[in-house]
Amino acid sequence: MPTPTYPRTARPALIVGSVAIDSVATPFAQSDNILGGAASYASIAASYFAPTRLVGVVGADFPAAFLKRLKKHGIDTQGLQIDPAGKTFYWSGRYRENFEGRDTLTIQLNVFDKFSPELPSNYKGTPFVMLGAIQPALQNHVIDQLTKEKQHKPFILADTFDLWIHTTRPDLERLLKRVDLFVINEEESQLLTGERNPAIAAGKLRKMGPRIIVIKKGGHGSLLFHPDGNFAIPAYPVTKFIDPTGAGDSYAGALIGYLAAANSTSFPTLKKAVAYATAVSSLTVESFSVDRLSGAGRKVIDQRYRALSALTRF
Amino acid sequence: MPTPTYPRTARPALIVGSVAIDSVATPFAQSDNILGGAASYASIAASYFAPTRLVGVVGADFPAAFLKRLKKHGIDTQGLQIDPAGKTFYWSGRYRENFEGRDTLTIQLNVFDKFSPELPSNYKGTPFVMLGAIQPALQNHVIDQLTKEKQHKPFILADTFDLWIHTTRPDLERLLKRVDLFVINEEESQLLTGERNPAIAAGKLRKMGPRIIVIKKGGHGSLLFHPDGNFAIPAYPVTKFIDPTGAGDSYAGALIGYLAAANSTSFPTLKKAVAYATAVSSLTVESFSVDRLSGAGRKVIDQRYRALSALTRF
Repeated sequence: MPTPTYPRTARPALIVGSVAIDSVATPFAQSDNILGGAASYASIAASYFAPTRLVGVVGADFPAAFLKRLKKHGIDTQGLQIDPAGKTFYWSGRYRENFEGRDTLTIQLNVFDKFSPELPSNYKGTPFVMLGAIQPALQNHVIDQLTKEKQHKPFILADTFDLWIHTTRPDLERLLKRVDLFVINEEESQLLTGERNPAIAAGKLRKMGPRIIVIKKGGHGSLLFHPDGNFAIPAYPVTKFIDPTGAGDSYAGALIGYLAAANSTSFPTLKKAVAYATAVSSLTVESFSVDRLSGAGRKVIDQRYRALSALTRF
Repeated sequence: MPTPTYPRTARPALIVGSVAIDSVATPFAQSDNILGGAASYASIAASYFAPTRLVGVVGADFPAAFLKRLKKHGIDTQGLQIDPAGKTFYWSGRYRENFEGRDTLTIQLNVFDKFSPELPSNYKGTPFVMLGAIQPALQNHVIDQLTKEKQHKPFILADTFDLWIHTTRPDLERLLKRVDLFVINEEESQLLTGERNPAIAAGKLRKMGPRIIVIKKGGHGSLLFHPDGNFAIPAYPVTKFIDPTGAGDSYAGALIGYLAAANSTSFPTLKKAVAYATAVSSLTVESFSVDRLSGAGRKVIDQRYRALSALTRF
């Protein structure tokens, strides 16, 4: 794909998170040593909408082809540390029958074990920031480095996952006080709030800090809770379901990318961003790794966005 | 509530199914000897939109207050047999924690055991018919009685449940060849088709006969598959969840009632009908029995319909 061009008004987006080498088994197929990690999926997704900066770490073994893939999307990899002393974060997992949960087979943190996200100085004023689901202490450390100037305060999206809810809840609670938009899946929102009704759970989450909440429900779509109103959207009806890995990460990446492109966090903009995020994440599940996400192109994304509009209008 | 008035163009709807006395326990509360049965929920729901005829059976013990409730909705109960020799169908059940499934505690079929739905002669030409989830052989028996005149062929909606998929599949398959619209929940569609992807399952169901499929996903909304297009709608975001009994029945009843009122089965009409069905069924879960469904009134239903439109538009 050609390096994307963005509208003149588009602001940059910063993605911080894991970059990994994955081996994934599903009930139907297997793919080994593929590009993975939340920040890989999220940065490619964001790059469809806005200039995208990536902060993460990889080892000396990180394949040049993977780096080339990110650069082809125009992603600024100045913040991607390459630690020559170690190997890239490696994860392998196996999805259970009917994709009802997955089991981790191997985690080798490698260079990720001592990773501390350090922002290049020209990243510190990035106006739209996504903090992937790394340890909340590290997410907080990123926020510490962002500009404190009131008129340039960045808009911050954070993701998390169940491990941090169980093990580092105080850090997570501190984080929530500092972010604008919290993206969480339905099970995790139940775990964190003790509330199964998503509307009530979202109210509790907003009391913990973020003024905007997105609850993802996988194949059942997602819900947006914004001070100016709520929004619900179904999943894009995928018929070729290969591997859900990275769906949530590409969802969040598209979300922050679209907001950066629009340079707005209004309710109408957030609704469109959620619809684009839905379209983009539907691509991710249609292949292993970022293959389909990366290969599809903006035109297919726009088609799916319009299809979602047609699918939901009455 | 006053007896409803309908648009001059509205056609009548016929509802066939169980009328029961229920005792329901949820994790939070219990309510005994209340009006239940698919046809009770469905006929009250349909009555908000179109003149509604009810075919079912009750025993001599059926409380006059329950009959009065149905009549207050203007429901034509000429087809409701009262069997003086027996007692009304009685069901009691208990929902499990978090409403994840329910257990039947008691079933006393009573007069329902020998029930054979016989249509009064003036019902046989009813243009819109809902067959509640009674035995497929009885659903077929109703169709046998409907007018065969080509230009007056009724539009038939059928519901079913997992027991009939397990025990009387040949009858169910015969039924499916004879109905226009099949309403089924997601688990049952998986059971019947062996396919978990709802879009693919709907394709398989359409090959079995019905040209229109609705797949209900409970709190995750519902999906419409029509020859002219597909439609997805989230559930109405209820915050006062009391008892899900009858939600699916009132959904189907509102659906057939709206189609009868519009005298159309076009794709745009079906989408609106699904949205109204979503609004109506959200009322059902807000109380035990038909209390909230019956008490809410058309104005609240219209409000929820508009709220669903606002919730889903981007």
